[in-house]
Amino acid sequence: MKNYNELALRLHKENKGKISVESKIKLENKDDLSIAYTPGVAEPCREIHKDESLAYEYTSKSNLVAVVSDGSAVLGLGDIGASASIPVMEGKAILFKSFADVDAFPICLNTNDVDEIVRTVKLLEPVFGGVNLEDISAPRCFEIEEKLKDVLNIPVFHDDQHGTAIVVAAGIINSLKLCKKEIDEIDVVVNGAGSAGIAITKLLIDIGVKNITLCDKNGAIYEGCEGLNWAQEKISKITNKNKQSGSLKDVIKGKDVFIGVSAPNVLTKDMIKDMADNPIIFAMANPIPEIMPDDAKEAGAFIIGTGRSDFPNQVNNVLAFPGIFRGALDIRAKEINNEMKIAAAYAIANSISENELSIDNILPNPLDKNVATNVANAVKKAAVTSNAARI
Amino acid sequence: MKNYNELALRLHKENKGKISVESKIKLENKDDLSIAYTPGVAEPCREIHKDESLAYEYTSKSNLVAVVSDGSAVLGLGDIGASASIPVMEGKAILFKSFADVDAFPICLNTNDVDEIVRTVKLLEPVFGGVNLEDISAPRCFEIEEKLKDVLNIPVFHDDQHGTAIVVAAGIINSLKLCKKEIDEIDVVVNGAGSAGIAITKLLIDIGVKNITLCDKNGAIYEGCEGLNWAQEKISKITNKNKQSGSLKDVIKGKDVFIGVSAPNVLTKDMIKDMADNPIIFAMANPIPEIMPDDAKEAGAFIIGTGRSDFPNQVNNVLAFPGIFRGALDIRAKEINNEMKIAAAYAIANSISENELSIDNILPNPLDKNVATNVANAVKKAAVTSNAARI
Repeated sequence: MKNYNELALRLHKENKGKISVESKIKLENKDDLSIAYTPGVAEPCREIHKDESLAYEYTSKSNLVAVVSDGSAVLGLGDIGASASIPVMEGKAILFKSFADVDAFPICLNTNDVDEIVRTVKLLEPVFGGVNLEDISAPRCFEIEEKLKDVLNIPVFHDDQHGTAIVVAAGIINSLKLCKKEIDEIDVVVNGAGSAGIAITKLLIDIGVKNITLCDKNGAIYEGCEGLNWAQEKISKITNKNKQSGSLKDVIKGKDVFIGVSAPNVLTKDMIKDMADNPIIFAMANPIPEIMPDDAKEAGAFIIGTGRSDFPNQVNNVLAFPGIFRGALDIRAKEINNEMKIAAAYAIANSISENELSIDNILPNPLDKNVATNVANAVKKAAVTSNAARI
Repeated sequence: MKNYNELALRLHKENKGKISVESKIKLENKDDLSIAYTPGVAEPCREIHKDESLAYEYTSKSNLVAVVSDGSAVLGLGDIGASASIPVMEGKAILFKSFADVDAFPICLNTNDVDEIVRTVKLLEPVFGGVNLEDISAPRCFEIEEKLKDVLNIPVFHDDQHGTAIVVAAGIINSLKLCKKEIDEIDVVVNGAGSAGIAITKLLIDIGVKNITLCDKNGAIYEGCEGLNWAQEKISKITNKNKQSGSLKDVIKGKDVFIGVSAPNVLTKDMIKDMADNPIIFAMANPIPEIMPDDAKEAGAFIIGTGRSDFPNQVNNVLAFPGIFRGALDIRAKEINNEMKIAAAYAIANSISENELSIDNILPNPLDKNVATNVANAVKKAAVTSNAARI
C-alpha cells in the first residue's frame, strides 16, 4: 500500500488546500465592473428583494451546497474539532464538484451545541441551495438533521447516514439478484448502532426488508432493553420483532446478511459459518473491516463488500451524494425524502447491467461518473412524484 | 449611459450568479481519491488537530476571506435583507479574486442582531483567513467590527468604513501635492456622519489632519451637541475643536476640503465659492454626487472627485481592499491596524508618479491591477513593523 499519508500531506501543503472560489465573469473593463458590480448589480438585488425565490435565478444559490460539520466524528479520528475537519470537508467539496458539478463550500463550526449549530445554519441559509451534514457524532446528528429539516427551506442530507445507507441498499439489491433470495424473506443483522447503522436499518426496511436486527457492542438491541439512546430506542420498536437478545455471535446464527459499521475484526470465520446459505457480508469498518475479504470468503461468504478501494465491491458514498444533490438542486427540491433515497439506491444498483453483475461486481466503480447522472435523473423523477420538486 | 440594469439582470441570470467553487486537485483515479480524500486526508487532519495553526498550511484558510453582510445597508438600496444582498457580496468576491487572487465567499446572514452576527462569524472562523464586513448599517457596523476584533484571531475589515477612508486619504494626499498645501494646515469638512464619514475622519486625523469638522444632515457635530449616536459622540471629542455649530452652508466657509458621503445635490456652487482658495471636493454620494463635477469646476473647485466611473478621480474601494487582504493574508496578519491602513493609502497615492499626477488624475485607474500589488507590499511591511504579522 502506498504511503498515502505522506502524499496527502504534500498535496495539501503544495496546493494550500483543495478548493478555490472562482469568478464566472470576466472583469476587464469599466463596463464589466458596471454590470457585475455597481451600478448594475443593484437591479438583481432589487428583484430578489421583491421576490426572494429569484435568488435561485440571479445568484449562485441554485448550485451551492454547504458541507456542514462540527468535526465531532471525523472519519476514524473522532472528535477532532472544526479546524482539523477542514481537509475532509474540502475533500467532500471537490468530490461534489468533480462528480456532479455541484459547488460546495466547507462550513466547519466551532461548537458542539446542537441548537447553536441549527441556528447558525439557519442564518447562513440565504446563500445556499442545500445542506450536506458531515461527520457529526450520534445521536446529535439525528437531532441536528431533524431540527434543520424543520427550520430550513432547502434540502438537508446527512451523508454519513443516508449516503452510506443508499449505497448499502444498492449493494443488497444487487446481491439478492445473484443469490436469488427475496428481499422480504431475508434475515439481516446490522452491527453498529450509530448514525450509519440506524440509517441503513431504516432504509432497508423502506425497500422491503422485514426481518432486521441491530446490534451494538453489547449485543442485540430489542424493544425495552437498557442503555439505549433515544434514536436507538426508536429504532428498537421497528426491528428485532422476536426480541432476540445476546451477543453478535448468538444473533448472527442463520442470518442471510451481515452489515457491519462497527469496529475492526469483530466478525469471525465461525460466525459466518453459522449464517444461512450464501451469506452476504458488508464489512465497512474503516480502514480495517469487521473481517478481511479473504477470510470471509474462506468461511463461505457468497459476497463480501467493504469500504476499501483495494478490494472488490467498495461501498463508497461518492456513488450517492453527488448525484443526489445534483438531482435535488436541478429540481429545486424542498427536501431529500425517502422516495428520493430509494430511487437513488435503485439507480446505483441498476448502473450495473445484468450481464456485468457478478459476486465481485455488485456496485459500480466509484470513479464511474455516469452513476451520478443516473442517480440525479432518478432523484429528480422521485422528487416530482413525491411532491418535493419546486420547479 | 448604457442600460446597466438590463445588462446586469441578463448577466446574473445567464451565469446563475457570479461565483463557483473549484477544485485545485485532479480526481481521476483511485490514487487521486486516496490522497485528496480517504484514507490520506486523515493525515493533514491529524496534523491540524495537533497544531491548529497548520490549518494555514493544509487547507484553503490562508487565502480565504468571508464577505459578511446582513444586507442592512446595501449600496443605495438600504435594508434589503440577506438574500437580496447576495449579488453584491458575490460581486465583492469576484473583485477580490480578479484584483488580488484572494478566494472570497459570501456569508449573507439572516439576522440584524449584533451579537448573533458576532457569534455566527466566530463559529465560522476556522475556515477563513480574514473577514470583510460589507453593507452593514451604522452604528451597528462599528459594534460588530469592534466585537469581532475582540473575539477573532483573524483580521477584520469593514470595507465601507476603511476601504473608503483609505482611498479618500490617498486622494487627499495627492491633491495636496498639487495645491501645495500642508496636511496639518488644511481645514476639512466631512458631510455625512455614518460609517464612511466617521472612518474617513479618523483616518485623516491619523495621517496628520488637525482641523476637521463632521456634519450630519442637521449640521456640524460638536462635543456635547444633541442627537448623536455613541459613535458620533465619540468622534465629536476629537473633531471640531472650536465647537462650531450651524448648517453645512455656514460651516464650509473658508474650508480647504469638502468630503461628501451624504446625499445628492447637497453641495451648492455658492458653498464652494465660500471655501478657501483652490478647494478640493470629494462628492461621493452614489449614483448622484453632492454636486456634479461640471458645476463644481464652474464654482471654482480645484479638484473634484466622485464615486462615479464616468468622471475623473473616481474614489473606488477596489483600489484598496484587494491589496489590503492580499498583504494581510500573505503575512498572516492578526489584524488590519492603522499603520497598515495608512500604508495602503500612501501606496495608492504613490501608484501615480509625480509626472502623471494632475488635477484630473489624482487617483489610479480602478482597473489598474498593479495598485493591488503596491498596496499588498506596503501593507505587509507595515504589518511587520507594527507587530501584526505572524509569519
